[in-house]
Amino acid sequence: MEKLAIGIDLGGTNLKGIIMTEQGEGTHLTRVPTEAKKGGQKVLENILTLIDKLIQKEGSKDNIIGVGIGTPGFVDRDGTVIGGAENLPGWKGTNIYGPIQHRFGLPGTAGNDVTVAALAESRFGAGKGVRNMVCLALGTGIGGGLVINDQLYKGSHGMAGELGHISVETNGLQCNCGQKGCVERYASAPGIVETAIRFSQELDEKHQTQFSREVLRKPQALTSKIVYDYVKKNDPVACRVNEFTCDKLAHAIGIIVNSLSPDRIILGGGVMMAGQIIIDTVSRYVPQYCWPEIWKRCDLAIAQLEENAGVLGAAGLVFEDFTDRRTLDDRRIVD
Amino acid sequence: MEKLAIGIDLGGTNLKGIIMTEQGEGTHLTRVPTEAKKGGQKVLENILTLIDKLIQKEGSKDNIIGVGIGTPGFVDRDGTVIGGAENLPGWKGTNIYGPIQHRFGLPGTAGNDVTVAALAESRFGAGKGVRNMVCLALGTGIGGGLVINDQLYKGSHGMAGELGHISVETNGLQCNCGQKGCVERYASAPGIVETAIRFSQELDEKHQTQFSREVLRKPQALTSKIVYDYVKKNDPVACRVNEFTCDKLAHAIGIIVNSLSPDRIILGGGVMMAGQIIIDTVSRYVPQYCWPEIWKRCDLAIAQLEENAGVLGAAGLVFEDFTDRRTLDDRRIVD
Repeated sequence: MEKLAIGIDLGGTNLKGIIMTEQGEGTHLTRVPTEAKKGGQKVLENILTLIDKLIQKEGSKDNIIGVGIGTPGFVDRDGTVIGGAENLPGWKGTNIYGPIQHRFGLPGTAGNDVTVAALAESRFGAGKGVRNMVCLALGTGIGGGLVINDQLYKGSHGMAGELGHISVETNGLQCNCGQKGCVERYASAPGIVETAIRFSQELDEKHQTQFSREVLRKPQALTSKIVYDYVKKNDPVACRVNEFTCDKLAHAIGIIVNSLSPDRIILGGGVMMAGQIIIDTVSRYVPQYCWPEIWKRCDLAIAQLEENAGVLGAAGLVFEDFTDRRTLDDRRIVD
Repeated sequence: MEKLAIGIDLGGTNLKGIIMTEQGEGTHLTRVPTEAKKGGQKVLENILTLIDKLIQKEGSKDNIIGVGIGTPGFVDRDGTVIGGAENLPGWKGTNIYGPIQHRFGLPGTAGNDVTVAALAESRFGAGKGVRNMVCLALGTGIGGGLVINDQLYKGSHGMAGELGHISVETNGLQCNCGQKGCVERYASAPGIVETAIRFSQELDEKHQTQFSREVLRKPQALTSKIVYDYVKKNDPVACRVNEFTCDKLAHAIGIIVNSLSPDRIILGGGVMMAGQIIIDTVSRYVPQYCWPEIWKRCDLAIAQLEENAGVLGAAGLVFEDFTDRRTLDDRRIVD
């Protein structure tokens, strides 16, 4: 019988669950509300309810080898959330693996939501066929995920991949992480919006464009999508915002290239709905920030799985952790 | 019979060779001149001669399972030097594995000299017992080496670990790599000397110290060792140089910590003869440049093997590549 894995993607609003084969074929995609405001224990209960629903839909848990969870924040090797999930009150300190094992007799595994999305891209999406790849998810913030020697790299405590907090401007914008000039302050959706507003405000009347006038009229309504709609219309101010954004992003990518020499860097997240224009602009700037010899052996691609990357990656983690002998042995050594 | 490996460390002046057990016990440490100026083919001949000498000293090659080479620059998976070894004219383009296989019937493997030194620290030195570690060698430049999931990570083309070229100052000093503000420009031995000269020149007469006067009198004779001798005497200018240097180094370390969340970062190279003072000063600055939650799970240590790290790591690479089934299979897939 074919082995199956349950994957759960923990979002701020909904929990998404799936049952998946090792080849990435998913069935029974199901959602339940996260109810984040009701606290960590309620979120955990909702996860257990969702697992229960998925098992009922499948009809049996005989072929299910484990449950994988993608969550904001960091999960330590024993399944305890150890931080970085500020919008989920009471989630920090929760142990995930224990209750899953207790209620369903299944082993649990977990990773940061962006990290597991990177695994999904590696196995089923834009990273297929390369050994070493890095994902950057450009959304409300910037998250990162690393696949190294064809294995997901979470770091010993699930904390690897905080690539949004690479500082690319020594005395740059203050970040809520405490640093200045984090790439997240420039190339996340809010960062792009902030740049567009600043650039528009700095212009005198005769240099205003259709875009900058719209920005100044309704700054609250501005989104990165609107910015890129104007970039595609060649609005000069919007194009300057794009150049500025991609320059900063390229700086962070250059640091990643020099450090890890990945075969591929994959850009995803809501900002990447803008598509190829970002890839093209970033590609022009990256050579300024790394060794050309390394960069010419790396390519830049758009994420393919997007909306379902999290849930597929969470399920993928089960196959990573519970079918690969080597990883299993490693876990035993540490536990 | 115990398996043995030959390790060769390719330096600008000498080739160093050793025969080593998997536990890191070395015998027959031997040197021959590199003769770098005579070109890549001559260097290769000298390597073959050194291998021959080592086999003669051992008396037989029956127990030797392969030859590992640590070299400046990058070596691709097929054993071809593909760049980054500017002080070895004609070395780029040389294939290392073919001649070793042909002459001795032994498989060859190679890696960047700093990368293999990181492997040695991981197996036999300051990195023993941790799964994920990063080495920074502070010398004429700054090199890096990564051990990830307890495996040496070279990158697909042997190019990972160019950590000296992480830019830590947006409009900083020009680096010969083309970027500005690379950490190598500040925290390598020449970088520290340059800072000391600049700081001394900028002082007016009444703020000069014993150190700054010596610097101005004989700038050509200044070394990072002299700087740190004065730091230990609490000379105020030398101490400012130390603070400045360690702040920049901490910035690069913060980026590494956020990206990889290693269990340990190891500092080695000639500059680290200064010892604990650098560890202590850097440790004060790192929290400004990364998530404290990640940093508190990482420690900072001084390299232990120093002079022999390269040759032990080169031999260690043989055991990595030719006794681990998984790695061997991976090589076959690519070849």
